[in-house]
Amino acid sequence: MQAELITIGDEILIGQTIDTNSAWMGKELNSLGIQVSQITSIKDERDAIKNALFAAEQSAANLVFITGGLGPTKDDITKHVLCEYFNTVLIRDNEVLDRIQTFFKARGREMLESNNQQADVPEACTVLLNDMGTASGMWFERNGTVFVSMPGVPYEMKHLMQDRVLPKIQELFKLPAVFHKTIMTTGIGESFLVEIIKDWETSLITEDIKIAYLPSPGIVRIRLTGQGDDLAPLQEKVLRKAKELYSLVPQHIFGEDDISMEEALGNLLKEKGQTIATAESCTGGYIAHLLTNKQGSSAFYLGGFVSYDNQVKIEVLRVDKDSIEEEGAVSETVVKQMANGARNLLKTDLAIATSGVAGPDGGTDEKPVGTVWIAIASSKGVIAKKFLFEKNRDRNIRRTALAAMSMVREVL
Amino acid sequence: MQAELITIGDEILIGQTIDTNSAWMGKELNSLGIQVSQITSIKDERDAIKNALFAAEQSAANLVFITGGLGPTKDDITKHVLCEYFNTVLIRDNEVLDRIQTFFKARGREMLESNNQQADVPEACTVLLNDMGTASGMWFERNGTVFVSMPGVPYEMKHLMQDRVLPKIQELFKLPAVFHKTIMTTGIGESFLVEIIKDWETSLITEDIKIAYLPSPGIVRIRLTGQGDDLAPLQEKVLRKAKELYSLVPQHIFGEDDISMEEALGNLLKEKGQTIATAESCTGGYIAHLLTNKQGSSAFYLGGFVSYDNQVKIEVLRVDKDSIEEEGAVSETVVKQMANGARNLLKTDLAIATSGVAGPDGGTDEKPVGTVWIAIASSKGVIAKKFLFEKNRDRNIRRTALAAMSMVREVL
Repeated sequence: MQAELITIGDEILIGQTIDTNSAWMGKELNSLGIQVSQITSIKDERDAIKNALFAAEQSAANLVFITGGLGPTKDDITKHVLCEYFNTVLIRDNEVLDRIQTFFKARGREMLESNNQQADVPEACTVLLNDMGTASGMWFERNGTVFVSMPGVPYEMKHLMQDRVLPKIQELFKLPAVFHKTIMTTGIGESFLVEIIKDWETSLITEDIKIAYLPSPGIVRIRLTGQGDDLAPLQEKVLRKAKELYSLVPQHIFGEDDISMEEALGNLLKEKGQTIATAESCTGGYIAHLLTNKQGSSAFYLGGFVSYDNQVKIEVLRVDKDSIEEEGAVSETVVKQMANGARNLLKTDLAIATSGVAGPDGGTDEKPVGTVWIAIASSKGVIAKKFLFEKNRDRNIRRTALAAMSMVREVL
Repeated sequence: MQAELITIGDEILIGQTIDTNSAWMGKELNSLGIQVSQITSIKDERDAIKNALFAAEQSAANLVFITGGLGPTKDDITKHVLCEYFNTVLIRDNEVLDRIQTFFKARGREMLESNNQQADVPEACTVLLNDMGTASGMWFERNGTVFVSMPGVPYEMKHLMQDRVLPKIQELFKLPAVFHKTIMTTGIGESFLVEIIKDWETSLITEDIKIAYLPSPGIVRIRLTGQGDDLAPLQEKVLRKAKELYSLVPQHIFGEDDISMEEALGNLLKEKGQTIATAESCTGGYIAHLLTNKQGSSAFYLGGFVSYDNQVKIEVLRVDKDSIEEEGAVSETVVKQMANGARNLLKTDLAIATSGVAGPDGGTDEKPVGTVWIAIASSKGVIAKKFLFEKNRDRNIRRTALAAMSMVREVL
């Protein structure tokens, strides 16, 4: 089964918006055994939309997903062009209208005529109700091809795909069985990882399992994929091979199935009934943000400090002034005192502290940009480790956070 | 002048790689007055490539940029398909071969036969020498359409575009002048904004200025574009109309040209010589992270607290225990005390405090999910404001941060 994606809107063509929707859809469809054969981004213009629809309808794809161009403003014309293309007219849908009115009421916002018009939908389509916004999804079928039009706002599109579109597709079509397993690793580069597990990788060929290495800063995901007629044997062989990885690189695996490091750590803390605090200098609140980004984090995260200025380290975290003067803020002594300070103040089981030169400026010969000290305080005492990351500030902050969370996992 | 972009490679279609190349190219071309009319991502397959080339050649575009599929590995077939499409053959280019050999020598790496083959280029093309890698760019012309093929590695593509392709295009074609101005607004939804500025928007038509509204959570960007023969008059009229916006929605404009809210606020704080601290509950360190994400933030950001647990609010920020018990942590009284506490502890000019129900759980009838109190403490005293955002945790955190930074701007 093949699919084509069409994204409508000038913002992608002029480079103001990066097309993350298509990447997300490609991934989701792939995991169901549907291959995306083409992604086309076009202008918010009648002829461009009609041509793209026509080309997709002529192609080998049975599924065409269209995103964008459904907002209430004047430059959004997709709905009208869809009517023209499918030879139908707009009618006002009272259920949709009710939902839009409720949506505005709940937010205490006034409705404009342009919002009412969002309840107008093509007569020939099946409406896909949108719980996250005011633009409905629309499902058309013609000569064996399904066309689905959705708003371009990422969380609205994702909601419609997950809750409306994909279930409907799975109901309609017999899709091949596909089974994926992703193993998340950290603290080892892709080429080193490949070297360690190369014999295991070769053994995948005889099992007809595909492998992909997906690197991102500080993390390499190993994805295994089996495809066939029946799910059960696929599942068995993919899981068996995935399990073998645990004996090859046990210290580098922190989770499975695209779980984030912060979520894996959160789960582990909850499981062990441990609480944690943060004292961040170079990461500037990023670790706190990661730990609190998922719901339920109050079960293990009590709070933290961003001690950007040295005075804050001294007065709030009770770091020794002389240590800062003698060894500098980016030092083993100071980062350990920060971790102990946070742990004592917030009475947690554990505390993370970071201090480093995130860059791009501020490096010296002795402590170049990318130098980072991380400490973990626990009932076992305090440990600290020095890292030398890179020149890029964003990536240094990200990699420090990952390394710190990885150290907490080791302590636990 | 119109252009089409074709990106070749499975990694985009399966969602493993987000297509940032096209966004970058779109932006660069646009700034030269070249409009990207379509972006097409296709598989590394002979027919898919030939069809995409054919469709682009038939379109109104005079320029076709092709990226990807030029590496030394087996699945990179672009070069062979280009030969077929342009009816030519591969010949070994000695200058390219020399450069590849130098490239490997400089890195102390051994050359494989597949690397030698990277010196084979279609006879009918003009070779664009690549200083950053081993795959050459290729320039073809046929019936008034230019086709340029480049490697997909972002920094190699950017080098070829900037140093080889764009200069050649500017030499060959007389390009129109284009001028863009983007005004960044916050605290107002797209439809309300449109309503307030509709007369002004109508006045753009007579000036031949195009407008686009680009919404993202908490922010709407208004982009004006003028195109014509000479830059000076375009610049005059676009800037004049952009300036008019400042009298229409002064309180909602926080910056220009895609500046982020945190950067705009950072600049304002530096300009005014003011320092700031944070005391975050529902935003969990996110505001601190945003403020410290850009270099130079230590000039205005001294530090902060993540007071996730109530005990931290009481013991560290000195929030009154009775206030929390009587009014709850999500209340005007508590958030004001948090802001004052942070400001006093860190001796800053300003302090931001947030407390809210980020969700998705934890809401009550009185304080549903999305209820957020934000306070700003300054020498003028402390102000607080209540917001009702939405059900989505990520977006609540994001919108709270934006609203808080916006409130600081107002206080300043």
